[in-house]
Amino acid sequence: MSKLSVNHLLGIKEISAEDIEQIFQTADEFKEVINRPIKKVPSLRDITIANLFFENSTRTKLSFELAEKRLSADVINFSAGSSSVKKGETLVDTVNNILAMKVDLVVMRHPNPGAAVFLSKNVDARIVNAGDGSHEHPTQALLDTYSIREKLGTVSGKKVLIVGDILHSRVALSNIFCLQKLGAEVKVCGPQTLIPKYIESLGVQVESDLRKALEWCDVANMLRIQLERQDIRYFPSIREYSMLYGLNKELLDSLSKKIVVMHPGPINRGVEITSDVADSEHAIILNQVENGVAIRMAVLYLLSSGIHQNQNV
Amino acid sequence: MSKLSVNHLLGIKEISAEDIEQIFQTADEFKEVINRPIKKVPSLRDITIANLFFENSTRTKLSFELAEKRLSADVINFSAGSSSVKKGETLVDTVNNILAMKVDLVVMRHPNPGAAVFLSKNVDARIVNAGDGSHEHPTQALLDTYSIREKLGTVSGKKVLIVGDILHSRVALSNIFCLQKLGAEVKVCGPQTLIPKYIESLGVQVESDLRKALEWCDVANMLRIQLERQDIRYFPSIREYSMLYGLNKELLDSLSKKIVVMHPGPINRGVEITSDVADSEHAIILNQVENGVAIRMAVLYLLSSGIHQNQNV
Amino acid sequence: MSKLSVNHLLGIKEISAEDIEQIFQTADEFKEVINRPIKKVPSLRDITIANLFFENSTRTKLSFELAEKRLSADVINFSAGSSSVKKGETLVDTVNNILAMKVDLVVMRHPNPGAAVFLSKNVDARIVNAGDGSHEHPTQALLDTYSIREKLGTVSGKKVLIVGDILHSRVALSNIFCLQKLGAEVKVCGPQTLIPKYIESLGVQVESDLRKALEWCDVANMLRIQLERQDIRYFPSIREYSMLYGLNKELLDSLSKKIVVMHPGPINRGVEITSDVADSEHAIILNQVENGVAIRMAVLYLLSSGIHQNQNV
Repeated sequence: MSKLSVNHLLGIKEISAEDIEQIFQTADEFKEVINRPIKKVPSLRDITIANLFFENSTRTKLSFELAEKRLSADVINFSAGSSSVKKGETLVDTVNNILAMKVDLVVMRHPNPGAAVFLSKNVDARIVNAGDGSHEHPTQALLDTYSIREKLGTVSGKKVLIVGDILHSRVALSNIFCLQKLGAEVKVCGPQTLIPKYIESLGVQVESDLRKALEWCDVANMLRIQLERQDIRYFPSIREYSMLYGLNKELLDSLSKKIVVMHPGPINRGVEITSDVADSEHAIILNQVENGVAIRMAVLYLLSSGIHQNQNV
Repeated sequence: MSKLSVNHLLGIKEISAEDIEQIFQTADEFKEVINRPIKKVPSLRDITIANLFFENSTRTKLSFELAEKRLSADVINFSAGSSSVKKGETLVDTVNNILAMKVDLVVMRHPNPGAAVFLSKNVDARIVNAGDGSHEHPTQALLDTYSIREKLGTVSGKKVLIVGDILHSRVALSNIFCLQKLGAEVKVCGPQTLIPKYIESLGVQVESDLRKALEWCDVANMLRIQLERQDIRYFPSIREYSMLYGLNKELLDSLSKKIVVMHPGPINRGVEITSDVADSEHAIILNQVENGVAIRMAVLYLLSSGIHQNQNV
Repeated sequence: MSKLSVNHLLGIKEISAEDIEQIFQTADEFKEVINRPIKKVPSLRDITIANLFFENSTRTKLSFELAEKRLSADVINFSAGSSSVKKGETLVDTVNNILAMKVDLVVMRHPNPGAAVFLSKNVDARIVNAGDGSHEHPTQALLDTYSIREKLGTVSGKKVLIVGDILHSRVALSNIFCLQKLGAEVKVCGPQTLIPKYIESLGVQVESDLRKALEWCDVANMLRIQLERQDIRYFPSIREYSMLYGLNKELLDSLSKKIVVMHPGPINRGVEITSDVADSEHAIILNQVENGVAIRMAVLYLLSSGIHQNQNV
């Protein structure tokens, strides 16, 4: 058994508040490690991890790779471009082949919602979901929530606003679960066409006016507009989106209190937020990136526990 | 000198039965290693290996990379997509440049038959052929034959059937050499257009009826139909191929004895074999994959012996 | 502070003759290391290096990667194909994100002249320019000049001819700076359309007749014709270029003295130089490649000095 209540990190929905707390406390320790001159620990030197990215990624992939290297794991990388997937092989066959090479843990990004869950039921390795379509992206939610805890001391009782394309966003969904489990209130704001109808059933309120929403919140998480993920257009133009849902310095300074600004990256400067906001003291965007490595080290470390016990050693 | 009778593994044709036996015995030891919690040995920590893949590959490349990492070699990867080959450089120039960076051993996949042989005559490093066009793929044949030995106790005297596209298959040719050197009998079965005319001169019989061929054999190696390698069509349709040369559970169960089913992967499920066959106890497909890492560790280890003696240390 | 007079290697123009001498002396030591059976030193085991290649490269990337591995640095690779750059992110955002993951040193190739300088002013890490458009390619110039020093004992007072496309060549510009700083004389030869008008203001003479130029020089550096970099045509045909500016054995043998022939690679055999010249004892092309690893080890080692002092450890 891993040190969490689960053997796989498939989504935030399946884990407990205690799991999240344990991940955060472990990340605290690893964050101290990666700020030392010698950033490496031998914790996972007996573990082989396969990074399977069936979808383009830069920062998530690099962040996982760094986390793995700093834990001294052996790492193999696999990306869809060079893969047998194109040769008509099924997902389970691809992964089973990689597992037959004695891989202990799989980090997978996949365009299909549910791909990670499906895998965990069909192969014998621990799975970390690094994003599956519009479903979940649990490590992103953990690092976002951890960054709020770091900045504000606690998550419980805080008011968090998520702005933008909620409909297609695995980041939004995972964040909502994570924040609520730790006792935060969540509101969303965005074009009506990009707010899913079921959102209120999750205990999330909708506010269509950005200024009102900002006045309400302690933290605003400005999601990236992922034009590459939309085959139909949900709003008239980028310019209009930016006017109604973009955050600029003037708007930020006009609020009655100081709020924290987050962005999962990569930023479209001038669309979701302007440059002066992104580079201001309000923004904790680069802290999010730094915390990403610590959070991923914590998740990999906690999930790996007991792997070799399963092998009857 | 390496610990084999050759300094390069260019094909099975050039090595002796004693070489194959030595590779198998060494693989036995490494297979024990990779099933331990700590899967790494320091054997090649002074050796730098370049993986040169001038053709797409997933499983062979991953398998070599894992083998190299588990032997603690330093590894550099080079694939054709990002290469100077496109800039008009010759193969020998490309490789000589890499060797001038002090690489001890080259693992190369190349679309041209004979590319590995050509290289071995022109550059000063040990070469492992990881597949050269339709010529040879020696480590695949070694892992296939090793898997038969593991399953049936011995290779000598066994009857092995190879089904499918024999004409374009480096896997078939290398398997024929390897099996015969260890005393097995080999038959092939497939569409006439995919059986090379010279095959009987190799001491290989042809059987066009799959049921008869299966009744004869102890082991059936079902080759992948590589549609991407065929510019002309050798059979009317995938559907017809599958009806005449595909293996399904009904056919398998109707045989008078239990046979072993192999596939080099990636599987086109429903074409060469159906899912119920691939996932049955007859199939040793995932064992082949696991054995691939051990076999490649053995080949690299045995060939690397004496490399630093050549450097007059 | 690094052990050089600068914290970044952006170009040869910004560094002193003393810096170059120190790099060469350090490279002497590393060259001895990479010719030992155990080619690795633990010098940079606390340093994380990001290789950011926004432009295709084989040999420079491999050479840097090998240098980094032999110094025991932790390495992450990033290439433009899989990058967020395509998602509209700015260069500074991309790099800052990578730095937030705690990277100490960035090796960057970029198509825009000045990209490395721009970065060094905007991010908090040491930068090595691995080629920025037509501006500079300092490590190439260092390895070229080091190879001349190795072959002829000294650089001071030597006459070096650079032949070919001077206009678009960062290699030519960096070589001119490096050679002049160490006291060599430089001439260039090539089609008038490929000789920049400002060249004489750098103290470089132009000689349009290749035979006369060769009679003058001790060393001829035959630049690669980079057809992929030219959107307009600067000479009538490859055939004519080769007749007027290509070096063949007959021409080489007809000279009144023996000269050294260099080429930065990849060679277009039969264009800049013929095969018999490339493979002759005159050519030091593979020495250049070998020296590239030693020079890059020296640069990374000298620049990394003091990195952890900056972190107040």
